[in-house]
Amino acid sequence: MLHLHHLENSRSFRILWLLEELKIDYELTRYKRTKAYLAPDSLKKVHPLGHAPILEVDGRCLLESGFIIEYLLKHYDEQQRFKPADNDELAWEYYTFWLHYSEAKAMPPLVVRLVFNKIVDRTPFLIKPAVKFMRRRVEKSYIADNILAMLALMEQHLADNLWFAGESFSAADIQMYFVAVAAKSRTPLGSGDYINVMNWLKRCQQRTAFKRAEKKGGHITL
Amino acid sequence: MLHLHHLENSRSFRILWLLEELKIDYELTRYKRTKAYLAPDSLKKVHPLGHAPILEVDGRCLLESGFIIEYLLKHYDEQQRFKPADNDELAWEYYTFWLHYSEAKAMPPLVVRLVFNKIVDRTPFLIKPAVKFMRRRVEKSYIADNILAMLALMEQHLADNLWFAGESFSAADIQMYFVAVAAKSRTPLGSGDYINVMNWLKRCQQRTAFKRAEKKGGHITL
Repeated sequence: MLHLHHLENSRSFRILWLLEELKIDYELTRYKRTKAYLAPDSLKKVHPLGHAPILEVDGRCLLESGFIIEYLLKHYDEQQRFKPADNDELAWEYYTFWLHYSEAKAMPPLVVRLVFNKIVDRTPFLIKPAVKFMRRRVEKSYIADNILAMLALMEQHLADNLWFAGESFSAADIQMYFVAVAAKSRTPLGSGDYINVMNWLKRCQQRTAFKRAEKKGGHITL
Repeated sequence: MLHLHHLENSRSFRILWLLEELKIDYELTRYKRTKAYLAPDSLKKVHPLGHAPILEVDGRCLLESGFIIEYLLKHYDEQQRFKPADNDELAWEYYTFWLHYSEAKAMPPLVVRLVFNKIVDRTPFLIKPAVKFMRRRVEKSYIADNILAMLALMEQHLADNLWFAGESFSAADIQMYFVAVAAKSRTPLGSGDYINVMNWLKRCQQRTAFKRAEKKGGHITL
């Protein structure tokens, strides 16, 4: 039996969406974020690391979006509907690259920006200017360029491909969707520079499994 | 033809090491970091993103450690010496989990700590106290706990397993080696709390392919 522990507005939306695409039975428990925008302690009772997603499989806890996706596809996607076959070389390369890239390169600067903003909000008045100075430095040296490079890479790929794995929708789109939504919250994508990313987002949102996932797990707003 | 672009003290050491394990022919170009500890502009001429590793395959640039590892194993590890077979379920799960975990959860707080330290070093004297205050906040809210949790997870796994995929050495060890060395540079691991991590590090360093990689690409010190 599968049991997904889903934290609102978090990476666990990916697993919820994939479970809906696979049309398999699962139990769902929803968790709300604390005022400090963290996972609640109740999630730590499921697994001490307390990070979403957590997928319980017969009482064992599986962690990490990329791994859980690969696990679910291995065991429940016998027809390979959501992952290119090994002999479909280019699609396999795209799929594998984006599955890793999403968390390895794309998410970290987005998470650091979020952490910084939360800290600036709660900084005492007197030292706020210095703290903002530091935020600008980090934004300049680590965050901004990386996010723009990532968006350019996504836009370029989606100008030539309907989906991240190429011609067909795959779990790489599910993995990258969360990245695009996180980027969109601070970088307006509607200016025309990211028309292909925006159109791909719409294609994702039109899928019936996506709609069912949002209904069960809540709309993602970061 | 394979051509590895290797930046000293970077993730590209992983690919160098794997190429040595696989005993295949490749061309190697080494790059030195700038004074600001960044990749040099010459790496941007190979690929505009300028991140190491970059593996050129017949003129195409492959990026991202996790993806390059999977690519090399798919095409050059026919006997599956460095990746568990699909039907070796537990080993496959371990391998896949650690391959993703290394970059998705383990590296980001280590990178943020590095970015912060570089910024503090170059902060004007007058506002240094406020900037250090912010570093402590980020260290507390995001970095320290995540690094300790990661080390605890590694130590626990290596107490029960010789290698990250279980009984046999695999590319998951190569992927995780860089993480352990990055963590070790700021958190002393020799205290006894991480005896299994330390012993695993030694087992890695004793491999002849590792020694050849260090000889060609330089010793990793972060």
